[in-house]
Amino acid sequence: MHNEAGREIPLHIDGLGSLTPYHKKQVNGQYKNTERLKDRQQNPAKNKVIASIEAAIKATGLRDGMTISFHHHFRNGDYIVNMVIDKIAEMGIRDLVLAASSLTDIHAPLVKHVQNGVIRRIETSGLRGELAQAYSHGLMDIPVVINSHGGRARAIASGECPIDVAFLGVPSCDPYGNANGYSRGNAAASACGSLGYAKVDAQHANRVVMITDNLVPYPNVPFGIPESQVDYVVVVDCIGDPKGIVSGATRYTSNPKDLLIARYAADVIEASGYFLDGFSLQTGSGGASLATTRFLRDKMLAHNVKASFALGGITQQIVELHEEGLIHRLLDVQSFDLKAVESLKNNRFHHQIDAEYYASPDNEGCAAHQLDVVVLSALEIDLDFNVNVITGSDGVIRGASGGHCDTAAGASASIIVAPLIRGRMPTILDKVNTIITPGHTVDVLVTDQGIAVNPMRDDLLHNLKAAKLPVVTIEELKEKATRIVGNPEPIQWEDKIVGVVKYRDGSVIDVIRQVKNK
Amino acid sequence: MHNEAGREIPLHIDGLGSLTPYHKKQVNGQYKNTERLKDRQQNPAKNKVIASIEAAIKATGLRDGMTISFHHHFRNGDYIVNMVIDKIAEMGIRDLVLAASSLTDIHAPLVKHVQNGVIRRIETSGLRGELAQAYSHGLMDIPVVINSHGGRARAIASGECPIDVAFLGVPSCDPYGNANGYSRGNAAASACGSLGYAKVDAQHANRVVMITDNLVPYPNVPFGIPESQVDYVVVVDCIGDPKGIVSGATRYTSNPKDLLIARYAADVIEASGYFLDGFSLQTGSGGASLATTRFLRDKMLAHNVKASFALGGITQQIVELHEEGLIHRLLDVQSFDLKAVESLKNNRFHHQIDAEYYASPDNEGCAAHQLDVVVLSALEIDLDFNVNVITGSDGVIRGASGGHCDTAAGASASIIVAPLIRGRMPTILDKVNTIITPGHTVDVLVTDQGIAVNPMRDDLLHNLKAAKLPVVTIEELKEKATRIVGNPEPIQWEDKIVGVVKYRDGSVIDVIRQVKNK
Repeated sequence: MHNEAGREIPLHIDGLGSLTPYHKKQVNGQYKNTERLKDRQQNPAKNKVIASIEAAIKATGLRDGMTISFHHHFRNGDYIVNMVIDKIAEMGIRDLVLAASSLTDIHAPLVKHVQNGVIRRIETSGLRGELAQAYSHGLMDIPVVINSHGGRARAIASGECPIDVAFLGVPSCDPYGNANGYSRGNAAASACGSLGYAKVDAQHANRVVMITDNLVPYPNVPFGIPESQVDYVVVVDCIGDPKGIVSGATRYTSNPKDLLIARYAADVIEASGYFLDGFSLQTGSGGASLATTRFLRDKMLAHNVKASFALGGITQQIVELHEEGLIHRLLDVQSFDLKAVESLKNNRFHHQIDAEYYASPDNEGCAAHQLDVVVLSALEIDLDFNVNVITGSDGVIRGASGGHCDTAAGASASIIVAPLIRGRMPTILDKVNTIITPGHTVDVLVTDQGIAVNPMRDDLLHNLKAAKLPVVTIEELKEKATRIVGNPEPIQWEDKIVGVVKYRDGSVIDVIRQVKNK
Repeated sequence: MHNEAGREIPLHIDGLGSLTPYHKKQVNGQYKNTERLKDRQQNPAKNKVIASIEAAIKATGLRDGMTISFHHHFRNGDYIVNMVIDKIAEMGIRDLVLAASSLTDIHAPLVKHVQNGVIRRIETSGLRGELAQAYSHGLMDIPVVINSHGGRARAIASGECPIDVAFLGVPSCDPYGNANGYSRGNAAASACGSLGYAKVDAQHANRVVMITDNLVPYPNVPFGIPESQVDYVVVVDCIGDPKGIVSGATRYTSNPKDLLIARYAADVIEASGYFLDGFSLQTGSGGASLATTRFLRDKMLAHNVKASFALGGITQQIVELHEEGLIHRLLDVQSFDLKAVESLKNNRFHHQIDAEYYASPDNEGCAAHQLDVVVLSALEIDLDFNVNVITGSDGVIRGASGGHCDTAAGASASIIVAPLIRGRMPTILDKVNTIITPGHTVDVLVTDQGIAVNPMRDDLLHNLKAAKLPVVTIEELKEKATRIVGNPEPIQWEDKIVGVVKYRDGSVIDVIRQVKNK
């Protein structure tokens, strides 16, 4: 037959199979887009801007029973989740699965949306505030599923958690969808830096809606999320509260207990055997963890040891070490403060990575598996070194799984920093109330009252003792705490399961039950 | 039941379905990798380096009938394709589909591998030299499939062309697979700049093997290809001939005919109506196309017009305009010379993009669809404005589809630059021998003897006439050529189809037949 270019085309060729003849295609009544406009953002064929959240929801074809997703780079300053789900509720769409990378206090309005069936169930890494309270008190029908950051990326990339529509708030976006965590011109407005968690959603979701308050000229390059993954762009008045999105500067702790823990943690790293030129590290944004970075700096300078890379959530403290030449590369999945945002924008070797690259256990290899040392916090740790970072001492959900179990498993030495006693509660228990990270991946516990090494790690025990660090058994640390504050009264649980904690491979490592009302 | 963290876990929860209990996992006889080595590249659990090409081929599970892929960023300096396929042949694996992004003279050894059945058939964008001769003379059983760059990316991303194993040569790679088109330290060795075509293969292939002669410390950041997509890394003595990979500097033509065409092309752009502040452009690396950039520069300075972006294959000429502030952003799918490589490495707004982002017609929107103006070359053009860039005037394959039809369709004004006569052959024919780009996406033909506008584009015709440019009909241009060199003798074809030309959407726009031996 003749195709529409006038050529004689066979419909089948041996070895190639069936062939489709060429057809001319018209778009908007013409063969190509020939509009000629000074402001390309005004050219309807060259942009994806849609009038409103409601119009975007309609355009995506969102309907009852589907799965929607959000990222948590705006932390407690996020306006996006509530804005979108309020609108979905208003439109009468129901029975959705909400697959957020994390949720926090500002998302309290979700309580009503879960209870009235707009949201059937939630997957998240963290849960705090009223929503967490509602779950822990048994007010929801279906348990919340808690994922690690690596576990969520794995589930999305593998198709285990297929996302129908991702609604992604972004601090800058062009009309075709190239998006960034910082702005041109208006840098401080609602910058969040890395879009590491959102990148996974953009890549794998069936429909992707960008929501921004800062439409910038095409092309918004370099981009965190590319136009080729974006269906619609919605411009709103405000995507979030800058004060809640990032802190202006992360301050060092002046708490003497934290400083003592940090000093010990740096000593542990120095003595561990991993403190070699080219070592790698991840430290969190908690007080003791941040301060560890400071003490480590002195040791790096003294011994002329430089780190090959720092991973994970990046803070001002880590950026300063990078700029000083002490850490060669920064792999940033989440920027914790404005200094980190500025650095991501300006420092060539401060690189934005997605959560799959960061910590997925199932791809061809993630950066967490390259870690030598990670410093992690804990709400509770038990005699088997299992760690809880999700439920408080009252059994109520108030934390986040995050990258805790991912980096503990990946790092050659995982170091938990925690005070021996918090308020009147001991940190070490016979059994933690909820396991997030299994004990066999946890190597050292550093408290203000001494250091305990997982008995599986003879090598570390030997090294830390040789360095004359105050090493005791974890049982001894527990006894010390008990002598001061006694044994805590066990939490009273109902039978109802309100939360399911998934390990990074998707298996269930623990469940969270309803707390008894006192 | 109790999971291996000792917790009581239900195997089913209403609303969540069945659950998998957590199991501890051992890797290499231990629960985590705790090796402590100064040189992390020596740590077998933290690298993917495999001893040889042969070992990598075995590890990927490559077997008869599978599809393998390669990129063409090393152009005529590429050692990878021959190195790998010689080894595959030696190992007795047969009947493979070779899906290369492009092939050229250096790949002549493929002739024997297709003829002896190691390679069953080939998909590529370009074909030159002995391999092209062999196809055109009917020496192969199954026709070669010619794809455009956007069409190939679409086919791979959509699963229409599933790749079993991608073998990707890279100028720098760390032991975990983070790869780049340039080197640290050893910048000039075999740098190719952007890995735009290879990125698509790395993302979608089932198994990915990186082949490098420059193993650098982890993490090789920023990366063109991330570790999370890489299975194996092989270190070889030499991946290519630097002289064939990029030219040291792209020189401006001094050919007066090319300069005249370039001057007209710049005049056409200026008069087109698209020459507004913020316009966008793509120009190729051919003599007239490059020179167009130079003449355009004068006009941009004179009218204070700046381009928002330049797209595609990036040359020194485009980089210089970027560094001068005349082009805000560079979107680089392929770096044509060392200056472009250096710029990609050093200029923050010179951004590496993949071929899907560049030109795929089927994703959520590609950069080619944002183009205002593209300047393209042609071997032949016909009275319907159809363009041939694949077969020579003797009918033999000697070119590449490239991004020709992608950008012609995407750009608001596509401008073909070509001399009216090449040697003793006219460029304009009644019907081109092979259609790569359909005429309805081609807007203007600029020759040294005058300018023709596609009658579909009244608007352009009006504008160019108003600017007093030497506009005539394409029939008049053809007659002019005929008066000088007469009508060429038609090519004598056999019936046998030796090539199938796919349009960017995967449909067949033309076929190439065997040329008659004279």
